[in-house]
Amino acid sequence: MGSLDANCIASPRGFSPLDIDDFRQQAHQTIEFICEYYKGIESHPVVPRWSPAISAVSSPSPPPPSPCHHPPGMTHWTNPNFFAYFPATLSSAALCGDLLASALNPVAFNWLSSPAVTELESLTLDWLAQLIRLPKGFLFSAGGGGVLQATTSEAVLCTLVAARKMVLERAGHDGADKLVVYASDQTHSTFAKACKIADLFSLRPDSLRAAMEADAAAGLLPVYVCATVGTTSSTAVDRWPSWPRWPAASAPGCTSTRRTRAAPASAPSSATIWTGRPGRLHQHEPHKWLLTGLDCCCLWVRDRPRLTTSLSTDPEYLKNRATESGLVVDYKDWQIGTGRRFRALKLFMVMRCYGTANLQSHIRSDVRMARGFEEMVAADTRFEVVVPRRFALVCFRMRPRRAGADGEAEADAANRRLLEEVTNSGRIYATHTVIGGIYVIRFAVGTTLTEERHVKAAWELFRAKADAAWEAAR
Amino acid sequence: MGSLDANCIASPRGFSPLDIDDFRQQAHQTIEFICEYYKGIESHPVVPRWSPAISAVSSPSPPPPSPCHHPPGMTHWTNPNFFAYFPATLSSAALCGDLLASALNPVAFNWLSSPAVTELESLTLDWLAQLIRLPKGFLFSAGGGGVLQATTSEAVLCTLVAARKMVLERAGHDGADKLVVYASDQTHSTFAKACKIADLFSLRPDSLRAAMEADAAAGLLPVYVCATVGTTSSTAVDRWPSWPRWPAASAPGCTSTRRTRAAPASAPSSATIWTGRPGRLHQHEPHKWLLTGLDCCCLWVRDRPRLTTSLSTDPEYLKNRATESGLVVDYKDWQIGTGRRFRALKLFMVMRCYGTANLQSHIRSDVRMARGFEEMVAADTRFEVVVPRRFALVCFRMRPRRAGADGEAEADAANRRLLEEVTNSGRIYATHTVIGGIYVIRFAVGTTLTEERHVKAAWELFRAKADAAWEAAR
Repeated sequence: MGSLDANCIASPRGFSPLDIDDFRQQAHQTIEFICEYYKGIESHPVVPRWSPAISAVSSPSPPPPSPCHHPPGMTHWTNPNFFAYFPATLSSAALCGDLLASALNPVAFNWLSSPAVTELESLTLDWLAQLIRLPKGFLFSAGGGGVLQATTSEAVLCTLVAARKMVLERAGHDGADKLVVYASDQTHSTFAKACKIADLFSLRPDSLRAAMEADAAAGLLPVYVCATVGTTSSTAVDRWPSWPRWPAASAPGCTSTRRTRAAPASAPSSATIWTGRPGRLHQHEPHKWLLTGLDCCCLWVRDRPRLTTSLSTDPEYLKNRATESGLVVDYKDWQIGTGRRFRALKLFMVMRCYGTANLQSHIRSDVRMARGFEEMVAADTRFEVVVPRRFALVCFRMRPRRAGADGEAEADAANRRLLEEVTNSGRIYATHTVIGGIYVIRFAVGTTLTEERHVKAAWELFRAKADAAWEAAR
Repeated sequence: MGSLDANCIASPRGFSPLDIDDFRQQAHQTIEFICEYYKGIESHPVVPRWSPAISAVSSPSPPPPSPCHHPPGMTHWTNPNFFAYFPATLSSAALCGDLLASALNPVAFNWLSSPAVTELESLTLDWLAQLIRLPKGFLFSAGGGGVLQATTSEAVLCTLVAARKMVLERAGHDGADKLVVYASDQTHSTFAKACKIADLFSLRPDSLRAAMEADAAAGLLPVYVCATVGTTSSTAVDRWPSWPRWPAASAPGCTSTRRTRAAPASAPSSATIWTGRPGRLHQHEPHKWLLTGLDCCCLWVRDRPRLTTSLSTDPEYLKNRATESGLVVDYKDWQIGTGRRFRALKLFMVMRCYGTANLQSHIRSDVRMARGFEEMVAADTRFEVVVPRRFALVCFRMRPRRAGADGEAEADAANRRLLEEVTNSGRIYATHTVIGGIYVIRFAVGTTLTEERHVKAAWELFRAKADAAWEAAR
């Protein structure tokens, strides 16, 4: 920690951190390092064997004597044997696009500060909206539009703020105490966090429609409904109620009601965001299933001004004619921050280089592999699939060996033990959740490099350790 | 827009978006593209000649027949003749670090999900805290600590939420209507935006101390004071009042009061964040002056639990023994989102590869060049420096040619014209602000590649166009 001085280069006069020749050499070396890393990716444990007590901050280790292509303490998210959480996918096109974006390094807070950055983002979000078959109202040409943000949490927070503003404008600021938003008990935890940040009160009703009607009768003001297509825990899909007709004063920004096959096509207009991991190419986080790498999250809205008027700023030093013309998009008014990275380039390159057919085949391949895993689980009488598989996540466990609460408790312990054994082997990484009170192993298929042989080998590992886990858990 | 189908690769079976050989070839090509881009960087206009009406979305152009190293419509932030806004700096170490981070692609929401990512971030933020001489209380070993976020806005919002929670816990939820936060009229616009998002009411008092005492007497609850060291408009430094002693029930999270030479060393503990562009190496946005490229923004707090308890989530599927041990840092509880990019690697590589002496010399060199520009302005009787230069920003204008309001209006028009002429030449890019009602040209020195010759040439350009701008503005 105190060794920074040792790294000073002797002559500050010669310090040129963007020297082209230096960059060329260092960047080519970095690429070779990455190629070596990927060549050996399956030969190292997916999860490190670190104890929390071993921390670089508290006990620094000596510098490595030779290059290490598997930095210690890394969980290898790109390892094809990674089946934990939801995998984050990546591609050559995205890596190159992102490198190029880093090298150009524009800070595209408004249109003028780098017009091409904004234009490319608008174009790419329109492409993706068409690919996932969003209603036309979400395209720029129809008054809607899309923006890239770092995380879904930020996107949700922005729409919450827009929805709150809209409701309070109708109800007056006295309504501030009566605002209420709705989500299910399986909604991602980040929604509750966004509500906390925006100081909104969130309900988790059993019946959305009944709750909203009762709340409206009691004088509360519904602001937002968060429906999830593909929850994090088990990829469940929220039932979307037929949308009630609200008196204008309390309508939570609802514009229309339609359905598509896989996702609600409408919602409170400022709140429409595709959360979770929806099927086919309904996808809002390209950094999960669409090969872009972190971070890249889409938000589309139907009605641009509803979002931008609640987030706009207009300091003197950013005033300019393009903004005043009203003809351009200033993305700083679509997000929490002002500055922003050129995230669109990697998404553009992924879509432009690979094309829709390959992207679809990639996602279908993951779903097919997950289906194969589900079938193998179902064929072994010791195991059961706990909730129906949707998309590419299988939630399964070893069955209880006897009925009743004691049997369930034993099964929980045995499954916990099984997951530990499997993960500690270093050969695969999977995680758990709890559904309806029972402990369940989550097996999420979908790193870029995962093939059928990895899925089969993972299943063999679970099978092989099953009986021993029962014994050990007793 | 509808041409995606044309890009489908024929055989989906052969689709392997992370093939090592493909990546190696494409990445090396990308690096050569970047080297060519940098070689020619001074030969192209800094700002594009685009009109807002020309939009790729509304009128797509045909694909380019040959490679273009200067994509149209880009504002070139890395061009050494860029003196607009605040420049964003970059380096070879950061580019390589970021590329490596993209290739590893960990989603380090909590410690367990990739221990090395969290450890490296904690280590690097401790390094940087020492480098900018933050009080020891901000180091991890003392109960404080740092985190990297994408933008200052998000960091400010997180601390606002923490401060609000702290005050409401003491005052009870009935206090929610009485919360008040303070900033100056030069505070970055993003602070007002963060207040809007958190639903807090912001005041801009002339005298902070008097306002806070009066408000406390009136039953209001001060939550947050936002002091800026180096405002965006003119790099002004807020006066920091000697901190009043508040009765415990209304104290806005204040822990101690000290000063360092350049910045207030303390502040409401959950609110301590170094905003703006402070002098020497006091710096909180490494993506501005510390060569890391976008996005990379530091937040340090004195008291970790005050921040994390207001932002924590604990869904079942992320529960793990490392978190339960209480020994590790889960960065998801330090930020708005859950997932996060491996930003620490590029900051680590910048600090590790270059060392403190080079980083200091880089910043001092920018300040020296700005001082040189200021001296040239002062030596020309047609011009004046409007506010004293601090750091690396010179705010100047052509002097009015006669006294009174009319003279000021003429000068505003002439300076506006001068800035337009200079910027439209394509040779440099600078922007404006308004200080005390007068139009001022902002000249911010500090792209990575800017040398003294660029600053001198820029000044010659302003001089050469000065008289013609007066004539044209009449």
